[in-house]
Amino acid sequence: MPLTPVLARLDADLDTALDRLMELLKIPSISTDPAYKGDCDTAADWLVADLASIGFDASKRHTPGHPMVVAHGGSGAPHLLFYGHYDVQPVDPLDLWDTDPFTPAIEELPHGKVIRGRGTSDDKGQLMTFVEAMRAWVAEHGQLPCKITIFLEGEEESGSPSLVPFMQANAAELKADMAMICDTTLFDGRVPSITTQLRGLLAEEVIVKAASRDLHSGMYGGLAANPIHVLTKVLADLHDDTGRITLDGFYDDVPELPDAIRAQWQALAFDHARFLGDVGLSVPAGEPDATPLETLWARPTAEVNGITGGYTGEGFKTVLPAEARAKVSFRLVGDQDPEKIHAAFVRHVEARLPADVTAEFPNGHGARASRMSTDDPAFETARKALSAEWGMEAAFIGSGGSIPIAGHFKEVLGMDAMLIGFGRDDDKIHSPNEKYDLNSFHHGMRSWARILAALSAKG
Amino acid sequence: MPLTPVLARLDADLDTALDRLMELLKIPSISTDPAYKGDCDTAADWLVADLASIGFDASKRHTPGHPMVVAHGGSGAPHLLFYGHYDVQPVDPLDLWDTDPFTPAIEELPHGKVIRGRGTSDDKGQLMTFVEAMRAWVAEHGQLPCKITIFLEGEEESGSPSLVPFMQANAAELKADMAMICDTTLFDGRVPSITTQLRGLLAEEVIVKAASRDLHSGMYGGLAANPIHVLTKVLADLHDDTGRITLDGFYDDVPELPDAIRAQWQALAFDHARFLGDVGLSVPAGEPDATPLETLWARPTAEVNGITGGYTGEGFKTVLPAEARAKVSFRLVGDQDPEKIHAAFVRHVEARLPADVTAEFPNGHGARASRMSTDDPAFETARKALSAEWGMEAAFIGSGGSIPIAGHFKEVLGMDAMLIGFGRDDDKIHSPNEKYDLNSFHHGMRSWARILAALSAKG
Repeated sequence: MPLTPVLARLDADLDTALDRLMELLKIPSISTDPAYKGDCDTAADWLVADLASIGFDASKRHTPGHPMVVAHGGSGAPHLLFYGHYDVQPVDPLDLWDTDPFTPAIEELPHGKVIRGRGTSDDKGQLMTFVEAMRAWVAEHGQLPCKITIFLEGEEESGSPSLVPFMQANAAELKADMAMICDTTLFDGRVPSITTQLRGLLAEEVIVKAASRDLHSGMYGGLAANPIHVLTKVLADLHDDTGRITLDGFYDDVPELPDAIRAQWQALAFDHARFLGDVGLSVPAGEPDATPLETLWARPTAEVNGITGGYTGEGFKTVLPAEARAKVSFRLVGDQDPEKIHAAFVRHVEARLPADVTAEFPNGHGARASRMSTDDPAFETARKALSAEWGMEAAFIGSGGSIPIAGHFKEVLGMDAMLIGFGRDDDKIHSPNEKYDLNSFHHGMRSWARILAALSAKG
Repeated sequence: MPLTPVLARLDADLDTALDRLMELLKIPSISTDPAYKGDCDTAADWLVADLASIGFDASKRHTPGHPMVVAHGGSGAPHLLFYGHYDVQPVDPLDLWDTDPFTPAIEELPHGKVIRGRGTSDDKGQLMTFVEAMRAWVAEHGQLPCKITIFLEGEEESGSPSLVPFMQANAAELKADMAMICDTTLFDGRVPSITTQLRGLLAEEVIVKAASRDLHSGMYGGLAANPIHVLTKVLADLHDDTGRITLDGFYDDVPELPDAIRAQWQALAFDHARFLGDVGLSVPAGEPDATPLETLWARPTAEVNGITGGYTGEGFKTVLPAEARAKVSFRLVGDQDPEKIHAAFVRHVEARLPADVTAEFPNGHGARASRMSTDDPAFETARKALSAEWGMEAAFIGSGGSIPIAGHFKEVLGMDAMLIGFGRDDDKIHSPNEKYDLNSFHHGMRSWARILAALSAKG
């Protein structure tokens, strides 16, 4: 089955593909906020209907949280499983958006057209690239080029609580030869890439409590413990003066970067000055003896993602609050064990609690870092297909982000994963004014058409 | 003019006095939140009308913020100025209130009846004690016992920005022989007291900024500066391990407590275990070499009253925020200069800013501590009148709170101030479920009737 007409059809049908994406983007499927539960369900329904229209045997599958979408189609080797997620990040602070986050629109920027809106890049725009490639394949040839399973979740932005139980319960149905995950970026916004190592993530919430109620600082100030003080001490002590993380044993399972990988990454000539300059920064903040790319891809972090306590409204309120809270996340590398780091974090906090002050850890979930084995020749085949589409050599890279699904495919289903995505670092995912380049969407679809052709020809 | 019928009338008219207080309490005059500007105006109108009904020449006086209420009445020596404030604290977190904060009601508690609602104790219930005493005096005798000016402000809970300019512009009108301020508590909830020393207050807001927008911690984590980290370091470093405040020169103008005052305070036999136990605490958190009462009344503090940054909603969001904010207040004693402490705080913050991180100090206002001269025999006269009403020796005490007005009366108008109030430490002012004991209201009114009689008899 020739590739050329499939590519031509993707070019010709770009506008209708965009119309479909816009429909999906309008659904505010924010998974972390219970207020949007119905919208997550609506997004799953939309995808089931769309996949069925291409000929997939598609269904919405119940979980204790938001539903999964599973679809089967095609026949013959190899059997590829495509993963994406239809849920999106919250949109606050809403007043920093220039447009409504769920009224997506095409905008003309100096570097080209972009699609603006929440979820455009993370991950609705990306997952639709492979859906559109398959649609074009079926339209041209009446069938998919190989056996394909599509597996879309709705809890990626809220810790994927249902994912592993669902994979375990449906292992026979989901097991394929290779997982294809579309949730990553072009390197430096232009180089097509296959991400072969990802940091893990441990997310923690800590609540520090002291008095049984908020107190007046004029009446109690000095004599009563202030939980904000305790929390700031706990958090300030997470790093020493050199930027190293102080948790007991934190670096025990952090490997040194192999020289071969360091050489590959140096060849990418990462422009960290531009990377930081794009967001108003200039000086790399990591450990002083790691290169910027090593800091981002191969070194662990401890970051406070949110903190709140006491009076935060207009004006002043001289209160000693009863409690203060923080959300802390650790990016993990190598063999760092989330449970071990969690225990070290709890000990770190508890060692800093004065009399009358207690701490609670109401949430917390983690996933190890993952590294793909690029020995499988499919990796090189896919890399060549990407190189052909983008007119430059595609690269094997790392990623600072955490896509726990890659590890789960390996651990639960014994399946390797190929992470190929077309986002850019300036897409503002998780921030106001998220966008996805039209170029990413268009060449993303074409890339998948080529990869399907290349892998199926070998199958 | 005999006192006895005035006291009898206050007893007989208690229910109608309560009805009037309830009307005032229903007005949500939250001064710090611009949304309640109209309500502050309504509260001022209500007070003008009520004072006029007693025969005062009362008027609402415009300021750039919320209005003042000024009323004049009576004749003869001495000329007493009575101060109170009609504005109240915000009510959040609203879900911790058992009743609506602005639907006041009488509740029966084990220790007696209380009036529940925002502003009952701070300060509407208190200011109405002297208004009711004057009403009863006029009702019985057709006139006030001496020349009286009433001066009520609506910005006490939001830093009193208009107060000093108004006092300066109206100095001749406001100058009296003595200011009577009703905004303090009974010692230990039972001992009538005249507060003769108050801590000052410096309120600061600090905003720490790094990247030009919120960043994804997977993409930037480790390489980009996190303003929450910088802020927690700044705040954690405000105290050393012994609880002492680290700002440069902070203790330069903090006097040692005179032995005579220390002896007086020790005689009060302060039950700090019960004081802390009432709010779920057990261990005094101040400097280890100060007694609890000294910590509360005569030692300075640095307290973080509010902190916010990053994602604070439900679930997790792996964001590196563009900024983080804190509200910090310093209780000042002795001769500590708010401007000098402000400068030291700014230096403390700026010394801890890494590359790419900036700090802003958008608000900030301060008032020095104040200490009254009890040489004026009026203090002893008032103390004896209080002792007679409450059936126990009234005390000269300190206060951990800041009532900058006392200092302003001295500095701007050259007038001493007598701080007499009937609140209790368990009134939960500035907290959910604020209340004022009916006993405080009733004996408060009677106390003012006695003090007016005693001071006028001498005049």
